[in-house]
Amino acid sequence: MIIVLKPGIGKKDEAAVLKEIRRLGYQPHVMRGVARTVIGAIGDERTHKSLETLASWAQVESVMPIQKRYKLVSREAHGRASTIDVRGNVIGGKRVQVMAGPCSVESELQLMTTAHAVKKAGATILRGGAFKPRTSPYEFQGLGEKGLKLLAKARQETGLAIITELLSEQQAELVADYADILQIGTRNAHNFQLLIAAARTGKPVLLKRGLSMKIEEWLLAGEYILANENPNLMFCERGVRTFETFTRNMLDLSTIPIIKKESHCPIVIDPSQGSGRADLVASMCKGAVAMGADALLIEVHPNPAEAWSDGAQQVSLEGFATLMEELKPFIAAAGRE
Amino acid sequence: MIIVLKPGIGKKDEAAVLKEIRRLGYQPHVMRGVARTVIGAIGDERTHKSLETLASWAQVESVMPIQKRYKLVSREAHGRASTIDVRGNVIGGKRVQVMAGPCSVESELQLMTTAHAVKKAGATILRGGAFKPRTSPYEFQGLGEKGLKLLAKARQETGLAIITELLSEQQAELVADYADILQIGTRNAHNFQLLIAAARTGKPVLLKRGLSMKIEEWLLAGEYILANENPNLMFCERGVRTFETFTRNMLDLSTIPIIKKESHCPIVIDPSQGSGRADLVASMCKGAVAMGADALLIEVHPNPAEAWSDGAQQVSLEGFATLMEELKPFIAAAGRE
Amino acid sequence: MIIVLKPGIGKKDEAAVLKEIRRLGYQPHVMRGVARTVIGAIGDERTHKSLETLASWAQVESVMPIQKRYKLVSREAHGRASTIDVRGNVIGGKRVQVMAGPCSVESELQLMTTAHAVKKAGATILRGGAFKPRTSPYEFQGLGEKGLKLLAKARQETGLAIITELLSEQQAELVADYADILQIGTRNAHNFQLLIAAARTGKPVLLKRGLSMKIEEWLLAGEYILANENPNLMFCERGVRTFETFTRNMLDLSTIPIIKKESHCPIVIDPSQGSGRADLVASMCKGAVAMGADALLIEVHPNPAEAWSDGAQQVSLEGFATLMEELKPFIAAAGRE
Amino acid sequence: MIIVLKPGIGKKDEAAVLKEIRRLGYQPHVMRGVARTVIGAIGDERTHKSLETLASWAQVESVMPIQKRYKLVSREAHGRASTIDVRGNVIGGKRVQVMAGPCSVESELQLMTTAHAVKKAGATILRGGAFKPRTSPYEFQGLGEKGLKLLAKARQETGLAIITELLSEQQAELVADYADILQIGTRNAHNFQLLIAAARTGKPVLLKRGLSMKIEEWLLAGEYILANENPNLMFCERGVRTFETFTRNMLDLSTIPIIKKESHCPIVIDPSQGSGRADLVASMCKGAVAMGADALLIEVHPNPAEAWSDGAQQVSLEGFATLMEELKPFIAAAGRE
Repeated sequence: MIIVLKPGIGKKDEAAVLKEIRRLGYQPHVMRGVARTVIGAIGDERTHKSLETLASWAQVESVMPIQKRYKLVSREAHGRASTIDVRGNVIGGKRVQVMAGPCSVESELQLMTTAHAVKKAGATILRGGAFKPRTSPYEFQGLGEKGLKLLAKARQETGLAIITELLSEQQAELVADYADILQIGTRNAHNFQLLIAAARTGKPVLLKRGLSMKIEEWLLAGEYILANENPNLMFCERGVRTFETFTRNMLDLSTIPIIKKESHCPIVIDPSQGSGRADLVASMCKGAVAMGADALLIEVHPNPAEAWSDGAQQVSLEGFATLMEELKPFIAAAGRE
Repeated sequence: MIIVLKPGIGKKDEAAVLKEIRRLGYQPHVMRGVARTVIGAIGDERTHKSLETLASWAQVESVMPIQKRYKLVSREAHGRASTIDVRGNVIGGKRVQVMAGPCSVESELQLMTTAHAVKKAGATILRGGAFKPRTSPYEFQGLGEKGLKLLAKARQETGLAIITELLSEQQAELVADYADILQIGTRNAHNFQLLIAAARTGKPVLLKRGLSMKIEEWLLAGEYILANENPNLMFCERGVRTFETFTRNMLDLSTIPIIKKESHCPIVIDPSQGSGRADLVASMCKGAVAMGADALLIEVHPNPAEAWSDGAQQVSLEGFATLMEELKPFIAAAGRE
Repeated sequence: MIIVLKPGIGKKDEAAVLKEIRRLGYQPHVMRGVARTVIGAIGDERTHKSLETLASWAQVESVMPIQKRYKLVSREAHGRASTIDVRGNVIGGKRVQVMAGPCSVESELQLMTTAHAVKKAGATILRGGAFKPRTSPYEFQGLGEKGLKLLAKARQETGLAIITELLSEQQAELVADYADILQIGTRNAHNFQLLIAAARTGKPVLLKRGLSMKIEEWLLAGEYILANENPNLMFCERGVRTFETFTRNMLDLSTIPIIKKESHCPIVIDPSQGSGRADLVASMCKGAVAMGADALLIEVHPNPAEAWSDGAQQVSLEGFATLMEELKPFIAAAGRE
Repeated sequence: MIIVLKPGIGKKDEAAVLKEIRRLGYQPHVMRGVARTVIGAIGDERTHKSLETLASWAQVESVMPIQKRYKLVSREAHGRASTIDVRGNVIGGKRVQVMAGPCSVESELQLMTTAHAVKKAGATILRGGAFKPRTSPYEFQGLGEKGLKLLAKARQETGLAIITELLSEQQAELVADYADILQIGTRNAHNFQLLIAAARTGKPVLLKRGLSMKIEEWLLAGEYILANENPNLMFCERGVRTFETFTRNMLDLSTIPIIKKESHCPIVIDPSQGSGRADLVASMCKGAVAMGADALLIEVHPNPAEAWSDGAQQVSLEGFATLMEELKPFIAAAGRE
């Protein structure tokens, strides 16, 4: 920690700060500058008591942390990139994995049609929401366990692995019984109890970035998964909220190189939520692949105009097949498969 | 709903849109403008199927909702302002209620000292976190049930009512057994399962605004409480996340007149989270009271510099007593008590 | 400056950093922490060369400034609050000044009607735009010099002082010939050439906060005025851009106590731009006054529905008179006149 | 325009709105919905008077524009993509152009070294700031005309075209005498007087997106260039300001497909400002090229650690040469040269 004293602070006030730093287990190191005195507090910021409370002292101008607060998710903790094996499909390896399927599971016909189509086009993992977090209580909330059963049936028929969203601690076991990957949605990215419950099922977890989550907070949320003894975490960027209204969210593709540098966990890009517009999805996927994304999560629907949720951002089956073809040269250019 | 067609759309493409609008239960109304054709779809947007999926049609430029999506929380639903009676303290009435206490319950001594002091200064409700949502898994997570028991003891000793945060669906019954008001924190404002669980306890609910929650989404989150048959909802503004780094959050005091216009539920202001700096709390409270806030939620600690969480934003016991004195003329100017 | 080295950096790489720090005129001070080595660089960050370029060195993790970068506008530079005398009306003194008038000067009738009405209600300064910055080139751009002449005539008739916006360096002398205060609008808050030109006219300058300007940047923009030998600067908060769409901007009232602490210059609040909605203006004014604003800048129009610009946020003459009455108890509560 | 009346509005109040709509030159079209009455106003929103002032009427709930406000920059206005020829280098054509060079022109040696190196690596346009907009008045403000002369000399020696920033209306002729492209920086993107002055020089203009500029506003700012009879406009995305602090700005790559759809003007990406970190530049460039950017604007310095401005985001000469090599497969995959 770096503690900056206000200008003109006397010896006595300074001594009180030094005493408190020592009391909390750190060793103070004083630097007298031209205008201000600065104190470095040596010690492990992650295990000792917090010095941030010093910011409320009258003689202190500011307190700045130095150490990164995440450890298990950090690149330093794990020399090389982690990979996650999901029914034989490796996420974080040489192959760019594509997770595709409808926003919501609506019916057997809708799901099976989609599953067969996305498999044929090259997807390896089927996405589909059975429990849906909706802004309004009057909107369609998902088929629940019936949706999970349909996903399991689609897996049996097509061999695709399955990813679906977990909304509630109380459903963690239920959803884990069916899913191959548990998705934590953007609205629950700060819901630490849900993160712990998801981690404890032992299933791989895909953690979406919160609506206005800083990258550091996202890494710390991921830390909740690894600290609960589940090593199979992947981060998923899905756009953040800004002042812009042209797109639903602003997809932050810089997260690809940043997560690769800061963490050993794979990074997945969701261009559907990331833009909220089906007509931007193909372009976003090309950028994501070129920048090194490990996987894509794409909303696909046999008839987007009739979708029960988020129709505007789902691509059609034909659109998806075309997209997968168009991506090939970019995947090759990135040295991936 | 208003559906705007792209320029130069032919009769056949237009007819398809009209047919779909009718199929979804609305009556279309065509207006041919200078550059574009616009279709009004007449029908109840809250009970019919969503027309937003039309946005994915090739011939459609945009789709705009007209009706407000919230109803039970809306001002129109309930002619006059609602009031909530908490152990004889009415929130939303003539008296401005003050909820004060430490960020986290840390010990019996800390809590009792604070409780007696804030009561003496004029607070009627004691706040204190027993379960704490923390960005890092390595930070203090709260005393849990032991903290709840201490809060109950403080209520018994002082007569103050109690508000504390609910973090997990699975703890809803437990927390409701002790608390007079359940607080839903900013990180869980989009956690609809938790909102439903809180509503079902029957206890009054204080719903903080999410980190980057639009006012419309906040009202809709409140709708989850009322739609689950709990009429005792209050909204709490605690600052939102922006580009500014000088303060921890940006306290949006415009929510006071806006919630008063849009809803019948009381509005509470949290200046502590709202700024993250104890030295701004008094000024924020004056503004909030002048603008018509129904209650204030203030973090107070006997020794902020030793607080186990958020020390920088907690005011001291003396600071709180001074603040309560300073507020009096503004409360009077606002015609409140 | 604080320079944080990456973990595990060798002696040679560290020595190179120390050498560079010395070369740039600072004295390095090494602290070896548990996980990282931290170097404090002692010297005046405002006059020496920047150390931020060290951030691009391979062995450096981060570089953090310590000193505040503004000096002339800082509170420390000028023991007590500055006041600005505008034709006998003191801004920053005991009296809360009210600047009121139309968004745009449209006609003699419109302006004189407004001027007499706002004077009668208690305003001391007349606002009105003669040069208007408009998002679209096809919108009304202001009456230009004809508008300035009308403002001068209104001053002559009513005795009100005049504030109007300066848009262009080339018009600085022209606008200064007519105006008592030059307003720099939010879109030009980062237009340093315009700030310099405004400063050099010698007229008092009201500097609005930029659309997404950090408070530190705002203070530094103000520094351009004082550094060009014009001491009469006032800051004006007018709302910032966020994700929220309910209001046009988010009025950040926390700037009142913050500017008071950080700077000696007066702080003015513009609730009209700050919300974009006339129905919120009165409430915003009450909050601003309670929190210590030195002046208010309010858009008033004899017939808002016929205004040539920003009709939605202008209050009527009657509305303004009522507002001025309603403010009185809050002004008294704040110990102002 | 769509005008939504409040619920329960009587005939008389409705008639007043209809009368006003007709008075302003539009034809009203009434739709009576379940809960509200909605009025479509038929007419050209870009040439008639604004109906937005109706939002201030007591009986009106909201007013929503339908037409896009930009015309000359719109894709519809100009069937196919525009191209701009800069000394034989076509921007917007098959070849992806690379503009590279230092943030600031510092010396002849620095500039010539960079110019030769970026030319050798494949750049066709040299960038370099002679007039620099700086947050603080105490920072290096550029070499001024001396810098322009050095740029001209570098052009003569290398054959590279030149782009440099225009800061002030008064320097428009001067800068245009030397530069092949005038750059309008992010801080001046809303400075309409500067846009007009730049347009009138007749030189091609590169318009950076403002710090928190909506895409619609950016297109309208571009409209100021075309409406002043300069057809050679290119848009440049350089990142916007958000809550995130990990990167200096958030580069919004979705602007590439969006500008391509909405406008006929070329789109340029600036990954240096867009991230503020040299280590992210290569990845950003790959994404930009894959998504269809017409050109890249990259900061390159012979010794980033000694740069007089923005050292942290400039890549070295070697780094640039490597980057240009790495981009080749992505340029080929995008079907460009």
